[in-house]
Amino acid sequence: MPIDLNGDLGESYGRWQVVDDRALMVALSSVNLACGFHAGDPSGLRLAVRAALDHRLAIGAHPSYPDLRGFGRVAMALPPEQVRDDVLYQLGALQALCHAEGETIRHVKPHGALYHAVADDPATAEAVGEAVASFDVTLPVVVRSRSRGAEVLEEAGLQVLREAFLDRQYRNDGRLVPRSRPDALVTDPVEIAERAVRLATEGSVVAIDGTVLSLAPHTLCLHGDGRDAGAVAIRVRDALEGAGVEVRAGTT
Amino acid sequence: MPIDLNGDLGESYGRWQVVDDRALMVALSSVNLACGFHAGDPSGLRLAVRAALDHRLAIGAHPSYPDLRGFGRVAMALPPEQVRDDVLYQLGALQALCHAEGETIRHVKPHGALYHAVADDPATAEAVGEAVASFDVTLPVVVRSRSRGAEVLEEAGLQVLREAFLDRQYRNDGRLVPRSRPDALVTDPVEIAERAVRLATEGSVVAIDGTVLSLAPHTLCLHGDGRDAGAVAIRVRDALEGAGVEVRAGTT
Amino acid sequence: MPIDLNGDLGESYGRWQVVDDRALMVALSSVNLACGFHAGDPSGLRLAVRAALDHRLAIGAHPSYPDLRGFGRVAMALPPEQVRDDVLYQLGALQALCHAEGETIRHVKPHGALYHAVADDPATAEAVGEAVASFDVTLPVVVRSRSRGAEVLEEAGLQVLREAFLDRQYRNDGRLVPRSRPDALVTDPVEIAERAVRLATEGSVVAIDGTVLSLAPHTLCLHGDGRDAGAVAIRVRDALEGAGVEVRAGTT
Amino acid sequence: MPIDLNGDLGESYGRWQVVDDRALMVALSSVNLACGFHAGDPSGLRLAVRAALDHRLAIGAHPSYPDLRGFGRVAMALPPEQVRDDVLYQLGALQALCHAEGETIRHVKPHGALYHAVADDPATAEAVGEAVASFDVTLPVVVRSRSRGAEVLEEAGLQVLREAFLDRQYRNDGRLVPRSRPDALVTDPVEIAERAVRLATEGSVVAIDGTVLSLAPHTLCLHGDGRDAGAVAIRVRDALEGAGVEVRAGTT
Repeated sequence: MPIDLNGDLGESYGRWQVVDDRALMVALSSVNLACGFHAGDPSGLRLAVRAALDHRLAIGAHPSYPDLRGFGRVAMALPPEQVRDDVLYQLGALQALCHAEGETIRHVKPHGALYHAVADDPATAEAVGEAVASFDVTLPVVVRSRSRGAEVLEEAGLQVLREAFLDRQYRNDGRLVPRSRPDALVTDPVEIAERAVRLATEGSVVAIDGTVLSLAPHTLCLHGDGRDAGAVAIRVRDALEGAGVEVRAGTT
Repeated sequence: MPIDLNGDLGESYGRWQVVDDRALMVALSSVNLACGFHAGDPSGLRLAVRAALDHRLAIGAHPSYPDLRGFGRVAMALPPEQVRDDVLYQLGALQALCHAEGETIRHVKPHGALYHAVADDPATAEAVGEAVASFDVTLPVVVRSRSRGAEVLEEAGLQVLREAFLDRQYRNDGRLVPRSRPDALVTDPVEIAERAVRLATEGSVVAIDGTVLSLAPHTLCLHGDGRDAGAVAIRVRDALEGAGVEVRAGTT
Repeated sequence: MPIDLNGDLGESYGRWQVVDDRALMVALSSVNLACGFHAGDPSGLRLAVRAALDHRLAIGAHPSYPDLRGFGRVAMALPPEQVRDDVLYQLGALQALCHAEGETIRHVKPHGALYHAVADDPATAEAVGEAVASFDVTLPVVVRSRSRGAEVLEEAGLQVLREAFLDRQYRNDGRLVPRSRPDALVTDPVEIAERAVRLATEGSVVAIDGTVLSLAPHTLCLHGDGRDAGAVAIRVRDALEGAGVEVRAGTT
Repeated sequence: MPIDLNGDLGESYGRWQVVDDRALMVALSSVNLACGFHAGDPSGLRLAVRAALDHRLAIGAHPSYPDLRGFGRVAMALPPEQVRDDVLYQLGALQALCHAEGETIRHVKPHGALYHAVADDPATAEAVGEAVASFDVTLPVVVRSRSRGAEVLEEAGLQVLREAFLDRQYRNDGRLVPRSRPDALVTDPVEIAERAVRLATEGSVVAIDGTVLSLAPHTLCLHGDGRDAGAVAIRVRDALEGAGVEVRAGTT
């Protein structure tokens, strides 16, 4: 079974540059590009689209709550129809920039607090599902594996790409240990690579309490803002390929 | 010869509602909808799209400099590639909202300070032209009649819809008397209607110094923020139809 | 016992004008002016300061979560230290505009979703209390009567002005019936005026289930965005004065 | 004669951190802190205030046009009264954050495109002067040496701190070579340090055409965003002190 390696990029804004997008791109098979609501001014996004195409990556949209200052990580009680229309607006905006470079959006992955709301709150999952369905019903949505949101989106007739995280610890119910906790992150590159191989070959991860969780992911997320993110990503890819796993996008 | 009557709408933002969009829509044949940079949150825009479709109006995009506070009327020295990508972003965003309602954008009319820069600054006209060409090369661009920008866009292979203003006074070089001058506006509804008929039937307007200016417009602009804007619009439409002029969109 | 009549004003933004600030000001004794985060650009705020001074009103700051689009009504999970520093920033900004007009801020009333969080969430109340204490420890804070937040702020050594609402229905626990419910608002001007007199003279209001609630308010809030807000405000003031109640600001 | 060494800091925004503020602070005698319009969220600014106080630096306000995306470098045609009120708003906001840390603003230095407009456009210089005068008439304003704006502000009764740039080339009329030109910057640390000593001891700099320009500066600006900005700053300070020049703030 092949697996996708995705990363969240295009997260610069104006003068504030996130420097090593390209270091991470070498190892990935797909990227989720910010759409202007948590990061990504139009010209910066266009450069990110070009960089992704240079690396032959599948480009997905990474829509967010409107929250530049909080980088889309602030939970917000928005009415579902606003969430729906905000996502549509962002999909269209990124699509136009992709189209100008001869490409098209291949998937949608909600960002930050919206990602978590899609996973855990059915009304938000439905709102995002309506946005995607009215934009392009064939577009897959990346959702946390074992989440209620994954079920809601599948029931709505959308293709779901189940996602697992390589550098985040899991609780035994399939949720992530919150970033506010000191043990939230997995930082050892060797351990990250081992988790990747186990997730790709057996579909499982060991939760923080020792429980073996079956996640059966289609795609594995690598964060780009950690230390040595590029080097970690290459190690993960090498480990996967060394274990005979094909790394490629678009596998549902 | 038919003529188009256009108005700038969708200019609410969140709680701040511009009330009488629908009053004006009754008389128009096309609308230019804000795209979020000077006005128009996504859900508000979606409602504006629906209202326009209820009135069977052709919908155009009304992209702007990024300037909510100044309502897109502040001149800004932006690099041309930023103008180009900002316009693309806005076209895509509005297109997605139109598409969700079963429609598509029919034209592009730059807004406010960007409109004037397109008319008078060739680099800005080229930047907007590149954005439109890469989005959809068949999409016409509404530009001030007799402007340098109209020539630049035609040279770039784009369709241009020459625009004349009914409630603004002209200088003898074809430019508008600036809003900052007390005699900038034409406010008498009878005079506005007479100007509409003369522009539609003879293609000309009398400038503020008495010069007869040939504008040969494809489309006439009615502003929605004046007093009794809806009533004025109906009077204009009645006068045009009374003079045997067909009012309809999309006439190049 | 005198009572204060307050209103939330300065809620324009750029071109989007809320028209009848002055109609309401005639009847009030104090105003809460937006500080730029949910409404209020600097020049618009300066005009609002001048108008308030023309009407001899006490000026308070009306700080908000950063949320222009949602008009500060969107609940947000912000870290308490961000809430604290956001409030400080807004207090200082409005103070500078007041100072330039020869005045100073007389009180602080959190706005919208922040108002409700101060009332119900002790961590938010503490954060706002720290901001006010470090700005000017003598500045009173307007808080919902009978709320946990009122206690938290008093325990922090701040002066609290207990507030009651004239045009909102109460639940029997002292909370407001949410705006999303059809029976949230009191709209009959006669009833609003009667509630004002009872609150000012007896300190009580009848909750939606018939319970008599003791609120003992220092200040009564009139909203400016309802129909005929100015006329309602004058009726309330007349009713209060007719009942022998002195209407004036600054009564703790 | 002592001289001031100033740097522009506090230029982070939310998650986007400019990393080495402290590296530069070691060498400076004063800092200009962003006020939220081109950079600087309230909590980030408060941290910057604390860091400046740890290094015993004089804190100045660095107000800007409202332009997060363009980092305040986009020229904007704003009405002078908006510039005035925007500056007041920012001064008050930063002052509140300073006051909470036991400090007060010591000077004002306009940022980016506003800095250049103050230097070259008398109406903008007057608007900024009015803002400073109504905030605190004793607060000095940092302005480009030999500029029209320096004269305008002095005529308005304000204290002016004339500024020279160490890492920017000058034209023979006292203006800076625009950043868009390849020869705009001085990058050799040895040359930067030599320019600092000559400006501090003789008051002059050699323009790009060889002309010796008399600038007689009170303060020298070091940019923090170049490569090795911290190391360059320490070299400059060492060179000044080695030449017997005292580096300290507040010297008019």
